[in-house]
Amino acid sequence: MTIRLIGYSASYPTLRVIICLKELGLPYELEPPASYQSLKDEDFIANKHPFGKMPVLFDGDFRITESRAICRYLASKYQGKHNDIILIPKDVHKAGLVDQFISYELSYYDPPLSKLVYQEKFAKKFFNKDPDPEIIKQAHEELAKVLDVYEKLLEGKEYLNGEYSLADLVLCPGTNYVYGAGHSDLWDNRPNVKNWWSRLCNRDANKKSFEEIKSFWENN
Amino acid sequence: MTIRLIGYSASYPTLRVIICLKELGLPYELEPPASYQSLKDEDFIANKHPFGKMPVLFDGDFRITESRAICRYLASKYQGKHNDIILIPKDVHKAGLVDQFISYELSYYDPPLSKLVYQEKFAKKFFNKDPDPEIIKQAHEELAKVLDVYEKLLEGKEYLNGEYSLADLVLCPGTNYVYGAGHSDLWDNRPNVKNWWSRLCNRDANKKSFEEIKSFWENN
Ligand SMILES: N[C@@H](CCC(=O)N[C@@H](CS)C(=O)NCC(=O)O)C(=O)O
Ligand SMILES: N[C@@H](CCC(=O)N[C@@H](CS)C(=O)NCC(=O)O)C(=O)O
Repeated sequence: MTIRLIGYSASYPTLRVIICLKELGLPYELEPPASYQSLKDEDFIANKHPFGKMPVLFDGDFRITESRAICRYLASKYQGKHNDIILIPKDVHKAGLVDQFISYELSYYDPPLSKLVYQEKFAKKFFNKDPDPEIIKQAHEELAKVLDVYEKLLEGKEYLNGEYSLADLVLCPGTNYVYGAGHSDLWDNRPNVKNWWSRLCNRDANKKSFEEIKSFWENN
Repeated sequence: MTIRLIGYSASYPTLRVIICLKELGLPYELEPPASYQSLKDEDFIANKHPFGKMPVLFDGDFRITESRAICRYLASKYQGKHNDIILIPKDVHKAGLVDQFISYELSYYDPPLSKLVYQEKFAKKFFNKDPDPEIIKQAHEELAKVLDVYEKLLEGKEYLNGEYSLADLVLCPGTNYVYGAGHSDLWDNRPNVKNWWSRLCNRDANKKSFEEIKSFWENN
């Protein structure tokens, strides 16, 4: 069954799914939408994503949207089939905590991070807007406080949930952008966070995905 | 094993978990925090929620935080044990779509809804602030657009995922607040949405939870 992923790899929710596919050893075809505007076309809304967003994944005829839900679906269906990487543990308590950490990412880590991604990477390139230094400063400070909490969460652990899991994966694409856009001090100043991020950067799936993205930014 | 839930039932993420516990037929003890401010105490941060939030659930010695993650955990562990209500289907595709709908709730439905909850119910009562008519107007319009999408999603279906599931449950507490605070037209003007919401209101777990909350607002 062919897996088709609709999205731009430079969109970091799409990149989240790409990393997941690579971790699980799943082949896929990436289909970039005609344009950013085309996400709001009647056809896209009716047959791809009702809110006009990417990514969208087709697994044969089965369609599913929303990056974190897609990753959970792929892990539930395919983990352990092509390699031995486990993104969602079988144990109900461990799986519960992976979900909890994904909710931390979504509720606390991502809001300031996504502001920085937008300001530092997208504003100028895609929307022809100058980055706003005040927003950048506030988001940097907000993220610093969040990372203070992560520093404690990671005490004595290699990954958020002990072993590598979807809890770590979900925050890789955004972190990679912001780390490389002048904010590396946020991670490097905190020993547990620093070691954790360098461990994540050394994973094959991340290395390959970050390389692809790098060449996108160099060539666009 | 005793289930202890730390939170105020008037906090709607806490109410989400209460509804879930009632749906699954699980007995629990509700432990209200000493005060709203106490969520930021060192002890609360260290032993309850690292970001100083409620709800927090203890299932015996096992601790888990974040309302939607708690609901998923409870469903995975307990559904089908005390009654036959299934919140997360066993089928991997159906379960994937439940996750997708939870992400719609979180990404599109909840942001304008939570603004209305804050403005209409909490601003005056807990923070001694006057509701801001401009924010209310904008959030109402934003939610109207989101509900136009839900109207289509619910076409020919009793519940978001066909059968009742966690996808519907997660949005009940916030909807109940906003529906009862002068915004019922948003649901009532859309036939599929209207029927769906009245179906949800008729569920025992919701009836009981909404009743409890009503008496809280009457007595506080
Ligand atoms: N909650 C969604 C968010 C997806 C999202 O915001 N994608 C952006 C691209 S990075 C998009 O499609 N934006 C189009 C728009 O909002 O018009 C997910 O996790 O998949
Ligand atoms: N993402 C969390 C949100 C919980 C949340 O925001 N709870 C509010 C009460 S309604 C809270 O604890 N606020 C305290 C604060 O932010 O200081 C969840 O779903 O459980």
